[in-house]
Amino acid sequence: MLPAQAQLTELRRGVDDILVEADLQARLAENRPLRIKAGFDPTAPDLHLGHTVLINKLRQFQEFGHEVIFLIGDFTGMIGDPSGRSATRPPLTPDDVQRNAETYATQIFRILDRERTRIEFNSRWMGAMSAADLIGLAARHTVARMLERDDFHKRYQAGKPIAIHEFLYPLVQGYDSVALHADVELGGTDQKFNLLVGRQMQQAFGQPPQIVMTMPLLEGLDGVNKMSKSLGNYIGITDPPADMFGKVMSVSDELMWRYYDLLSFEPAAAIAGLRQEVAAGANPRDVKIRLALELVARFHGGDAAQQAREGFLRRFADRQLPEEIAEITVHARDGRLGIAYILREAQLVTSTTEALRMIRQGAVKLDGERVEDGRCEIPAGASHVFQVGKRRVARITVLG
Amino acid sequence: MLPAQAQLTELRRGVDDILVEADLQARLAENRPLRIKAGFDPTAPDLHLGHTVLINKLRQFQEFGHEVIFLIGDFTGMIGDPSGRSATRPPLTPDDVQRNAETYATQIFRILDRERTRIEFNSRWMGAMSAADLIGLAARHTVARMLERDDFHKRYQAGKPIAIHEFLYPLVQGYDSVALHADVELGGTDQKFNLLVGRQMQQAFGQPPQIVMTMPLLEGLDGVNKMSKSLGNYIGITDPPADMFGKVMSVSDELMWRYYDLLSFEPAAAIAGLRQEVAAGANPRDVKIRLALELVARFHGGDAAQQAREGFLRRFADRQLPEEIAEITVHARDGRLGIAYILREAQLVTSTTEALRMIRQGAVKLDGERVEDGRCEIPAGASHVFQVGKRRVARITVLG
Repeated sequence: MLPAQAQLTELRRGVDDILVEADLQARLAENRPLRIKAGFDPTAPDLHLGHTVLINKLRQFQEFGHEVIFLIGDFTGMIGDPSGRSATRPPLTPDDVQRNAETYATQIFRILDRERTRIEFNSRWMGAMSAADLIGLAARHTVARMLERDDFHKRYQAGKPIAIHEFLYPLVQGYDSVALHADVELGGTDQKFNLLVGRQMQQAFGQPPQIVMTMPLLEGLDGVNKMSKSLGNYIGITDPPADMFGKVMSVSDELMWRYYDLLSFEPAAAIAGLRQEVAAGANPRDVKIRLALELVARFHGGDAAQQAREGFLRRFADRQLPEEIAEITVHARDGRLGIAYILREAQLVTSTTEALRMIRQGAVKLDGERVEDGRCEIPAGASHVFQVGKRRVARITVLG
Repeated sequence: MLPAQAQLTELRRGVDDILVEADLQARLAENRPLRIKAGFDPTAPDLHLGHTVLINKLRQFQEFGHEVIFLIGDFTGMIGDPSGRSATRPPLTPDDVQRNAETYATQIFRILDRERTRIEFNSRWMGAMSAADLIGLAARHTVARMLERDDFHKRYQAGKPIAIHEFLYPLVQGYDSVALHADVELGGTDQKFNLLVGRQMQQAFGQPPQIVMTMPLLEGLDGVNKMSKSLGNYIGITDPPADMFGKVMSVSDELMWRYYDLLSFEPAAAIAGLRQEVAAGANPRDVKIRLALELVARFHGGDAAQQAREGFLRRFADRQLPEEIAEITVHARDGRLGIAYILREAQLVTSTTEALRMIRQGAVKLDGERVEDGRCEIPAGASHVFQVGKRRVARITVLG
């Protein structure tokens, strides 16, 4: 295995925080495969690039010879929301869990090495746990400490209800680290509190506490909000090649560098070189194409990536669109938005009446194709180049 | 069975609160044996008269033909204090629980009818409960509501730790009412919150909510603090007849009426008659003797009560003690106090030096017997007549 210091230098890249870094170094120096845990919600198996920030880090650990434990938190998922307050979270059946796990597997193995990945379900040990054992776990943590967690604190202060079982879920997650003898646990910055509970729990059970590694939350296409499916500002890892390519090309130059840091597998030195080239006058669009190529190739292979690139360039070259076109986002209603509204919101027309007239006259194009039907609707998450007449052009992303 | 209204009139006596009284009346009118639940801590099987306030009420329900469920909370007792903060609460073994239950049984059946009493242990259903089921119970209650409980609120405000499992225990107690299909639950006023959780829990499980009946907390011999073993101001129901008689005789006249209301089985009308007699000039000591006789007879039989009465009167008559002697309380150190300190605290002597001199001179008597040894110590909870010379006399109770 690579020396601990060399591993550490690479592992640090893009990370938000490591608690405690000296412990990680010491454990890497033991020169054995470490157990790297990451937990996933069993209800939402459609991964987007935001999720892959963490999965990429898992991949790095695998490359250094460590074992990744992809933990599906099906125990809590199968309980659902017993308070009955949320109609949208019915309990999952074992069949649901199995189906979601398979979907996860097909998605994560586009990034992770199947041979060095163990998929676990926490129902294996939590399903057998008695109420008395759970009370034992609960005894090791205080109400005051739990209310320090940022989201609980805000809800308590605002008088919004927190059901008591919500205090038990971090304990379950922490106990998972005990059951798995985790050496390292990865999570988003919003998971730091829960990951630290895992450390305490392991200490209480006489295990050396896991190292906690938090990864930043990736901004979505808008460059402002966290990438999420519900906001519609995401790039799904099952998005078709052309969509994925186009979405990457739609991000701002500033956000592009963020995506390079968190999503690209290129060495840090290579990325620094690209930054210098752009600073010296190179066209950032070419650097963005390079990133889009890398990402599409990761999920669809090199040929598909090249085709997506050619398609993208052709649309711009053949239809003589200006190189620098406006990037505009509009908000969907009920998951979609009619084309006339989109054109008005983007100020390519002054009214929906004008939009419909222009469509009837054959003057409106979508990705270079004439729009025939004024009732056409665009789903949230889509990003297209809209053109009205010769000069009014914009790339419009429809957010959810 | 007696008409509901007639039962209710008697059941109301001495009660602090009934929630909801109309429900109780309706359920009594169903003319069937109701299930009357009362929970007891499995760790402290030595009952004192304070505990019997509640047990007497259970007995009243039995007299009206209802079924009493004497519930021993062994499930939580066998968990102990898993936080490890309290060294004094090690988990109980099943043997401990069984032994304590037998001690309870011999004590409560001096008051309750064995035929109409069901002894239950909540480990029967809680031991089989899974962690998932407990999470389901916890989901039905909020953190904010739990923090409204008076003792939790005070501790949280004072920054004193509350372990999360302490939030689970009221839920367990509440679920016991579901498991037992309780119609009525009795408890002290300090238990009201927990008893109400039982109501909510039954409703959540589709059962009609139990009626909650709270009994006042009995003041101890000092007339100020709640009767408790740790304060030493108690009358144990296994105290020997002479001790029990003497302790009852030591209470103030005011407290005597409180004890009549909460401990005597005499009809309310008879007690009202006694009050009138005293108001008209009768000696309250005679009324107190009547109460002492009733209580000693309850736990030791009529003959023992008469003997205790005669012994008590003889000590006062034979040794020509003044009828009205001072009642003094002193505080023990480490559960006991040396006689020289007692005499000084009670101001029968001016110093411990004087006390020891008087003892050497044979001038100090304890319940009429000469004290030979100045190193003699009196345990907390004891109450004796001390005499120094002819005129300095007091009944001194040593509090813990």
